[in-house]
Amino acid sequence: MPNPTAAMIVIGDEILSGRTRDSNMHHLSGQLTEAGIDLKEVRVIGDEVDTIVSAVQAMSASYDHVFTSGGIGPTHDDITANCIAAAFGVSIDVRDDARAILATHYAKSGTELNEARLRMARIPEGASLIDNPVSAAPGFTLQNVHVMAGVPSVFQAMVQSVLPTLTGGAPLISKTLRIERGEGDIAGPLGALAVAFPDLSMGSYPFQKDGKYGAHIVIRGNDDAQIDDAMIQLQAAFP
Amino acid sequence: MPNPTAAMIVIGDEILSGRTRDSNMHHLSGQLTEAGIDLKEVRVIGDEVDTIVSAVQAMSASYDHVFTSGGIGPTHDDITANCIAAAFGVSIDVRDDARAILATHYAKSGTELNEARLRMARIPEGASLIDNPVSAAPGFTLQNVHVMAGVPSVFQAMVQSVLPTLTGGAPLISKTLRIERGEGDIAGPLGALAVAFPDLSMGSYPFQKDGKYGAHIVIRGNDDAQIDDAMIQLQAAFP
Repeated sequence: MPNPTAAMIVIGDEILSGRTRDSNMHHLSGQLTEAGIDLKEVRVIGDEVDTIVSAVQAMSASYDHVFTSGGIGPTHDDITANCIAAAFGVSIDVRDDARAILATHYAKSGTELNEARLRMARIPEGASLIDNPVSAAPGFTLQNVHVMAGVPSVFQAMVQSVLPTLTGGAPLISKTLRIERGEGDIAGPLGALAVAFPDLSMGSYPFQKDGKYGAHIVIRGNDDAQIDDAMIQLQAAFP
Repeated sequence: MPNPTAAMIVIGDEILSGRTRDSNMHHLSGQLTEAGIDLKEVRVIGDEVDTIVSAVQAMSASYDHVFTSGGIGPTHDDITANCIAAAFGVSIDVRDDARAILATHYAKSGTELNEARLRMARIPEGASLIDNPVSAAPGFTLQNVHVMAGVPSVFQAMVQSVLPTLTGGAPLISKTLRIERGEGDIAGPLGALAVAFPDLSMGSYPFQKDGKYGAHIVIRGNDDAQIDDAMIQLQAAFP
């Protein structure tokens, strides 16, 4: 059986303008690979309702899981929850269980649960909450879409809450050989090897260091023994 | 007149698997903002022909410029040039000017211009070359799609070659105020300010440092004086 597929939507003008460097994509990609879920596509989009709604609809229909990051805080530019509700045609309102989580959290620090903070308890109808051990305000899962915060520490905690609830396939195994030859010399034998092992994926990632040219050849697949076979043949071709 | 729009396509299984952390998106986003070109969307996709072709077609039709990174080296997994040709229904073959660039480059180091390396001289019909001062093998522009290498040093050099040829609009100006209050306290006044300045975009990016909560409030727009006005009102609200 093929592995489940996933897509990610990174939401935020600050990423597209270059002000903020996204780190959530790299974190999620590694976690999904370990969990045996194949990340097939990532889209980075701005804080615009129509753009978010159509991306969520398109990707929710195309992949087994969709993960979003960003736009679920208390300020006016946090529009992700509304867009998710709109994408699935369900209502959204402050929900009692989410409000209770926030009330407990803010009571501890003597902070007022004002109207802005209460926005973070607005949950689309039918969604289940994603635990946020870092700053309380929950994420949520609606159908196959997992909606999480953009702040990296919170995003990572929410990924940790969600991933164990999903069923993955076989983890992707990858092995790397560093070859100190120009990619142009590696290409021929590597192409032949890729034909000989159709179930494996072989990638070549060139580097240039201290005046030397070379490439990291990465062989990926789900079958450890097959990867080892291919690795042995690759090593033999470049002694 | 609104600024020209742009999209980016990052091509590579190694990004989606988490093996490689992409840095080209962050580089390009900053460069485009400075040039007055609005980056509206980024897609990260794998090394699959159909996926690449349809992403190129969709984004070329939707935006003024499309920038791609990755997949134009000499190995079998470098399929971007072929996909660009397919996306526009044009032929692709080794072109004399690109071959001459490679021949000169490899002659200097006494390296053979073999069949694999010659793949990098395959250019779709009608494209113009993008200069690569780092490692010679050129990128190319076909219609509104700029096709560049994935290796960050080469990608950055190619961006440097392409950007001055494009006409940008007014550079996006952004100013930031650091406020040491919870986002929930900032949200109300900030929302009112966003309504009062409809031409400006206001973003709130929370942080938590040394036990203190706060947010960086970023006001963006093309009109410096208007941004200053808004900044003064924001500072007055949080003395």
